[in-house]
Amino acid sequence: MGRDTLPWLRPLGAVPSGAGESAFRVWAPHAVAVAVASRGREWPLAHEELGVWAAQAAVGAGENYWLMLDPLGGGSRRRLPDPASRWQPRGMRGPSRVLDASAFAWTDAAFEAPALERLVLYELHVGTFTPAGTFDGVIASLPRLRELGVNAIELMPVADFPGMRGWGYDGVYISAAHRAYGGPLGLQRLVDAAHREGLAVILDVVYNHLGDSGVRAFTAFGPYFTERYETFWGKAINYDDAFSDPVREWVLQSACGWIRDFHLDGLRLDAIDAIFDTGARPIVAAIAARVHAVNPRALVIAESGLNDPRVIRRPDACGWGCDGQWADDFHHALRVLLTGDRDGYYADFGRVGDLARAFRRPFVYDGRYSPFRGRVFGAPADDCRPEQFIVFAMNHDQVGNRALGERLEPAARPLAAFCVLLSPFTPMLFMGEEYGEDAPFRFFCDHIDKRVIKATRAGRRKEFAAFAGFGGELPDPQSIESFEVSRLTGRTDGVLAELYARLLEARRSLSGEARAIEFDEDARWLKLERDGGALVCNFSNVAQAVPTNRTEVILSTHPTRVGEGKVILEPLAGALLR
Amino acid sequence: MGRDTLPWLRPLGAVPSGAGESAFRVWAPHAVAVAVASRGREWPLAHEELGVWAAQAAVGAGENYWLMLDPLGGGSRRRLPDPASRWQPRGMRGPSRVLDASAFAWTDAAFEAPALERLVLYELHVGTFTPAGTFDGVIASLPRLRELGVNAIELMPVADFPGMRGWGYDGVYISAAHRAYGGPLGLQRLVDAAHREGLAVILDVVYNHLGDSGVRAFTAFGPYFTERYETFWGKAINYDDAFSDPVREWVLQSACGWIRDFHLDGLRLDAIDAIFDTGARPIVAAIAARVHAVNPRALVIAESGLNDPRVIRRPDACGWGCDGQWADDFHHALRVLLTGDRDGYYADFGRVGDLARAFRRPFVYDGRYSPFRGRVFGAPADDCRPEQFIVFAMNHDQVGNRALGERLEPAARPLAAFCVLLSPFTPMLFMGEEYGEDAPFRFFCDHIDKRVIKATRAGRRKEFAAFAGFGGELPDPQSIESFEVSRLTGRTDGVLAELYARLLEARRSLSGEARAIEFDEDARWLKLERDGGALVCNFSNVAQAVPTNRTEVILSTHPTRVGEGKVILEPLAGALLR
Repeated sequence: MGRDTLPWLRPLGAVPSGAGESAFRVWAPHAVAVAVASRGREWPLAHEELGVWAAQAAVGAGENYWLMLDPLGGGSRRRLPDPASRWQPRGMRGPSRVLDASAFAWTDAAFEAPALERLVLYELHVGTFTPAGTFDGVIASLPRLRELGVNAIELMPVADFPGMRGWGYDGVYISAAHRAYGGPLGLQRLVDAAHREGLAVILDVVYNHLGDSGVRAFTAFGPYFTERYETFWGKAINYDDAFSDPVREWVLQSACGWIRDFHLDGLRLDAIDAIFDTGARPIVAAIAARVHAVNPRALVIAESGLNDPRVIRRPDACGWGCDGQWADDFHHALRVLLTGDRDGYYADFGRVGDLARAFRRPFVYDGRYSPFRGRVFGAPADDCRPEQFIVFAMNHDQVGNRALGERLEPAARPLAAFCVLLSPFTPMLFMGEEYGEDAPFRFFCDHIDKRVIKATRAGRRKEFAAFAGFGGELPDPQSIESFEVSRLTGRTDGVLAELYARLLEARRSLSGEARAIEFDEDARWLKLERDGGALVCNFSNVAQAVPTNRTEVILSTHPTRVGEGKVILEPLAGALLR
Repeated sequence: MGRDTLPWLRPLGAVPSGAGESAFRVWAPHAVAVAVASRGREWPLAHEELGVWAAQAAVGAGENYWLMLDPLGGGSRRRLPDPASRWQPRGMRGPSRVLDASAFAWTDAAFEAPALERLVLYELHVGTFTPAGTFDGVIASLPRLRELGVNAIELMPVADFPGMRGWGYDGVYISAAHRAYGGPLGLQRLVDAAHREGLAVILDVVYNHLGDSGVRAFTAFGPYFTERYETFWGKAINYDDAFSDPVREWVLQSACGWIRDFHLDGLRLDAIDAIFDTGARPIVAAIAARVHAVNPRALVIAESGLNDPRVIRRPDACGWGCDGQWADDFHHALRVLLTGDRDGYYADFGRVGDLARAFRRPFVYDGRYSPFRGRVFGAPADDCRPEQFIVFAMNHDQVGNRALGERLEPAARPLAAFCVLLSPFTPMLFMGEEYGEDAPFRFFCDHIDKRVIKATRAGRRKEFAAFAGFGGELPDPQSIESFEVSRLTGRTDGVLAELYARLLEARRSLSGEARAIEFDEDARWLKLERDGGALVCNFSNVAQAVPTNRTEVILSTHPTRVGEGKVILEPLAGALLR
């Protein structure tokens, strides 16, 4: 059978066809009979072929439905949500609801998403960004973000996850925007509003595992998981084992659906190093190709712990075709200089020379031996463009995965922002950092399964065993307090807020790669040239004189004196010179 | 630390430096002290860095030695062979012996290995090829093979494996030619003799796992294995987990050593689909690069169950840089037509159209849905050259992995040979098939560990559960009979032997790809054009008239009549027409 006629290539899930009817299709090779149930009635699905079942049923847009499965090999009948559900109005143990994705009255025809080379990202968690904690709640802040110079918001995962609060990385119904945030219609309203405001919207999607609470429901349908690999967070999704094609297609249709029906401007693929696929067509490359087929300007940004440039190379250059990737090494090199943290993976960093490398291309480990990993790690990325790397001083992980979720300490913030925002890479802010927010961003969840609650608590304890600095009691992720204290307070550090505004403005006057990078490992200063200005930074805890012939200070994080072939920088200060 | 200064990049194992001394180097991060022991004396090794130990010791070429390990974390001292051993004169539980690889008086300076496009391979198992069962025993047959038209022998694995008989795929000391065959000096004699006779020598090497009997000894040194993946045959070798670099280097030095010191003309990499490496520099690509750096003409031929053309693409075209790969699909498509076998993976084949596809490029599954695998499998290989695919009517697996190890049935042999030898691909014969040998090639072993004997027997039983046709008692692989009955008898089918000679001669008159491939699925004939002639084949069990305008029969497997726009072929017959 040729690839093009495989039955799962047709739309999976419920597609309303008008007049109170929808076309249903589900891949359920573990069932001997499948039906759609709604309003006390049932419509049997017919077996198309290879485990795919389909039928038309009198269930229209906005109506709830269940899938009824008679298991292969006997056992009692099961009532389950649709794996391809686009709406779970009562959560992951409730019915699915038919979404008419085409019903929304879009007003964004004039919107043009910013190109990667001028992108300024802003990561936010919908639930804690505002008191309302909803998609609609975000809308009021959009003008402020645009005025600041942000041109894209990046939403932490919104796919239906257990309970009413969570980071979203244990999502289960990968195509259903969470009811706690306002469901799919709320997401459409937010994207439309953002586009009217001139802001793009990127969505974080988790295609490496499913939240443990959903594993049994999915396994009732078919082999969604493989025993060949393991992830840190749960069973690995079956991308290359027997019966993987319908699983791949379920993910590909999810990715395309977000772009096509929710007008999202891109996807951030969570932890692709935990997406295992040794086949001839790696799924990450397939996702990038399918997303670009729907919208060639849509961005596919990978969170990749691989330091492997093939992720962001074009398909015609042996690449997987992602547009960009997060650059953790840049963050680590910067943070360790600023804070002296050396726990866990920070042990691989600590020299000004590491940051100097990272300013050229952010893979500090590009084929060098990494003592933390105990192996040669990564490969050079010189052929990749600087804007393909997303850099940040904070993000949900680097804040929230600390024991208490505390943000970067105040003394380090100005220089951190200076390095990130004036770098040749694509900068990303984490909600609130632009005004000095001090609320922590704790790890929080609202699991519905006692086993998962227990495992989550144990996992956190184990994780922090590697970070020796923490000796206290870990906050309970399941508690409502962990969520509530993470909500932005809005309390503003005016000086820092002004610095962010000026840095974002100055960023637009710079262009090109970092050139002529110099540093002094002992004195802990670093300077580099870009077209439009020179950056000088002092990472030591005493003032330093940095040699330079430039005399004009365009901006600086702290009071700065220039004179006689040098610039005097305060501790943890940076200046942009002309 | 840069890649180039890592301590394991220096030569591992024992390197004689003359005057009864050798340089020893071993990677043993699981030890707190390491020494070399020989003749009742000991020489402590010094820790260089990162778990690598080294010293000069007064142990010269030809002397036996042990490595003495004091385990990290306490426990009793252990006396073990060298993981990089090149000689195990008393087997895998005995001492290692220092090999002066440069001492051999080579006489092969004039030898030029055949290019891939004119290669004719001949796979043989040293232990059963002759009554002696040794490297030296093979030498007497070389003139006969050369006269037949073979220009390369491919040795089944010779790296030290448990006991005195075995196929060799459970080898442990990957760089030590087995004593039962004559050890490293015997291998040098064979290669030199083959080169004098104008024959290249390819060696089958197993870098996907180690024989189970060696796992504990290796683990005493360091993390040679990973828990991230599993192979069918044992623990997966650690190519991408923490501390994988010294393991990679141990394999790379092994591969280079065979080429450099034994003058081998190439390596056949066993089952690379069981070599797991998700890193930025896949180990298979690294092996190919390192082998080609030693000898650009050396061939790296992969046994790949991936149907992924990247394996044999050049590095500048996104490839791993192997020169060729085995083409199982061609074999299966051919065999199922000839024999009607449909058990196990043969279920995916059975149509003349499958073989027609395979004659263009041997990936019958090149992105099509494979019912046996339950998934879309492979990718197109149109950009790869035909000679990069190794095709065969029999090989050690396709004969030996049948329950009784029986060869292809006599009635099918002429047409099988016709298709393989006149194909545009690189043909490989399995020892004895060229004269109609009828000895089976059974699975046999001589394990030294009761647990492994039991597991091997159970594994065979499980494997043959998939092949429904077999209802009898499985031969015991551990018995000496399984080995003895597999020895070639030399009993010759003169008619078949004559056909092989004529086919190999005719092969040299053909060139180019298969063109104008036509077939009739119902009548079960197939014809195709190559430069120099047209092949016509009848796979049905009755005579068939195949339409053609050609009138001259260059050769045929059976009496063949031509006339009036057609050729009449007997059942299971083939003819080469002009």
